[in-house]
Amino acid sequence: MDPRPVALDAFGGDNAPDAILAGAELAFRQGVPVLLVGDANRLRGKVPRGLTVVHAPEVVEMDEPASTPLRKKPGASIRRIFELVQEGQAIGAVTCGHSGAAMASALHVLGAIPGIERPPLATVVPRKDGGQLVLVDLGANVDCKPQHLAQFAVLGDAYARVVLGMTNPRVGLLANGEERGKGNTQVRAAWPELEALPLNFVGNVEPLGALRGECDVLVCDGFVGNVMLKTVEGTVEVVGRVLRDEIRRRPGAQLGAWLLQGAIRRFRQRTAYDAVGGALLLGVEGVAVVGHGRADARAVASALRYARSCAEAGLLPTLRHSVAQRLARDTMGSVR
Amino acid sequence: MDPRPVALDAFGGDNAPDAILAGAELAFRQGVPVLLVGDANRLRGKVPRGLTVVHAPEVVEMDEPASTPLRKKPGASIRRIFELVQEGQAIGAVTCGHSGAAMASALHVLGAIPGIERPPLATVVPRKDGGQLVLVDLGANVDCKPQHLAQFAVLGDAYARVVLGMTNPRVGLLANGEERGKGNTQVRAAWPELEALPLNFVGNVEPLGALRGECDVLVCDGFVGNVMLKTVEGTVEVVGRVLRDEIRRRPGAQLGAWLLQGAIRRFRQRTAYDAVGGALLLGVEGVAVVGHGRADARAVASALRYARSCAEAGLLPTLRHSVAQRLARDTMGSVR
Repeated sequence: MDPRPVALDAFGGDNAPDAILAGAELAFRQGVPVLLVGDANRLRGKVPRGLTVVHAPEVVEMDEPASTPLRKKPGASIRRIFELVQEGQAIGAVTCGHSGAAMASALHVLGAIPGIERPPLATVVPRKDGGQLVLVDLGANVDCKPQHLAQFAVLGDAYARVVLGMTNPRVGLLANGEERGKGNTQVRAAWPELEALPLNFVGNVEPLGALRGECDVLVCDGFVGNVMLKTVEGTVEVVGRVLRDEIRRRPGAQLGAWLLQGAIRRFRQRTAYDAVGGALLLGVEGVAVVGHGRADARAVASALRYARSCAEAGLLPTLRHSVAQRLARDTMGSVR
Repeated sequence: MDPRPVALDAFGGDNAPDAILAGAELAFRQGVPVLLVGDANRLRGKVPRGLTVVHAPEVVEMDEPASTPLRKKPGASIRRIFELVQEGQAIGAVTCGHSGAAMASALHVLGAIPGIERPPLATVVPRKDGGQLVLVDLGANVDCKPQHLAQFAVLGDAYARVVLGMTNPRVGLLANGEERGKGNTQVRAAWPELEALPLNFVGNVEPLGALRGECDVLVCDGFVGNVMLKTVEGTVEVVGRVLRDEIRRRPGAQLGAWLLQGAIRRFRQRTAYDAVGGALLLGVEGVAVVGHGRADARAVASALRYARSCAEAGLLPTLRHSVAQRLARDTMGSVR
């Protein structure tokens, strides 16, 4: 097992640095070495026993542009974590800060895997059949071209195989109808690109079908993927609220509320951000996890474990290999 | 009260004609006059007491093109219902059949309200705060231009006022970020069009915010709106399944399952298709409700009551008036 730590941005997230430090301590106790990255002066006296700090004097605030760590604040913790990966000092990086700044920094510092033009964000969503749906892209790229969607497909497939252990993931193209020819201009243009790849492409898949288990990897433009992910989150909130209200009106209300609370907590633990602690920026030359801004200690610890398990599973070499093989083969016209 | 009936396509939907007839009977007993439209020979002996039949010999099957009732089967029931509206024999039309064929027929037979280029589908989704979110467009139009989204906004606002009784509905533009400038090319181009309308435009709204209650009307391209609606439906299924599994594992499982079942049923009753029985095709010259293909008798009855209440509320004159006033004013450059 690689003894190197995961680099953690101590000053990213709504509850930074306290929730971040608590999450680092939790992960550390679970056996994950963590390197805290942030302003050493502000961290003095707060660092959990056993953890070390890499000094990064600047912090990117949520209202600053995504390019801030590239231009105005090159010493920002959200950038430094990726430099530690690039330098080989860390096996992966986690931030719960400004997601635009995180993506810009990761791409700038680590670079993209050759063949990948626009690295996408990926995460998993629980399905009705008990399986997991890999959603890619979640919002890193909008107005994608067909070849971008094809690149997302290759990355998502490799991720599903190496991290989730799937053998022949079914790759679907998110659309508003299953038949070929359904979809918007973008989807119709992407279909032949995806069909030409040496992947288990199952064609257009609607959100309802995908959530029921009709595919394992769902490829989409980042705008649409973001709408889908946020709609899942929002619907869980609405359902939870309505169910609470309904149960309160019935006999056995207290027991019902208790049952529901436990069940909803378990559901949340299975969903993307809580289960894996964040979204993975696929297609950069390193393991880069972008956690939820609202992350609490438990979610931070999940993100750290997740980054470590991606690195340990050999995510990066698998992605490189897949992209080189599958996208190159596609370019050369020798398909399937 | 207008004594005219709602025209109902007896041969549209997965469970036609039985579920449709049962729904018609239910609505009729609730005081909604219904005109059954379909093949009189196939309906013989099945027509509930008190209902009359308008003969329409042809049926559009789900695998036929949307243009079928315009070209190959002009005598189809899915077309005839709109002719009855156009002729003044019915105050509205309901079908649970082929939604593409329904939209094509409605537009062909009834025509669009002057100023509306592409009539959108609208429905309501329950929000966390107990309110209702009007989603428009749900999938009638993909690759929309900015002016189409502006037209959807005017229609959605008028619908929210006249049918849902809202006084000054907050109109949001569906996006992957709240700040101006977020979104894809389409959203960024639509913003100024929506801002220029004499409406309560609240800017970009994310799905999570919309489901929490940050706006009353959410405007989007039909591709994206369809993804959002189907994701809501799918997530409700996933949550229901996961909660059932979780509750089964706990003490008090039987009571829990019973509570949950009742609560989920109530939730479904509040959601779009079940609460209102279908989506409304806004912007055509008549009340046109497109029900869910899976509609059971109760959902069919809801759709019939919904069509009637839209007609009674004066939906069509309000839409005409709003479009004439608001879109015309916009064109003349005199805004707000």
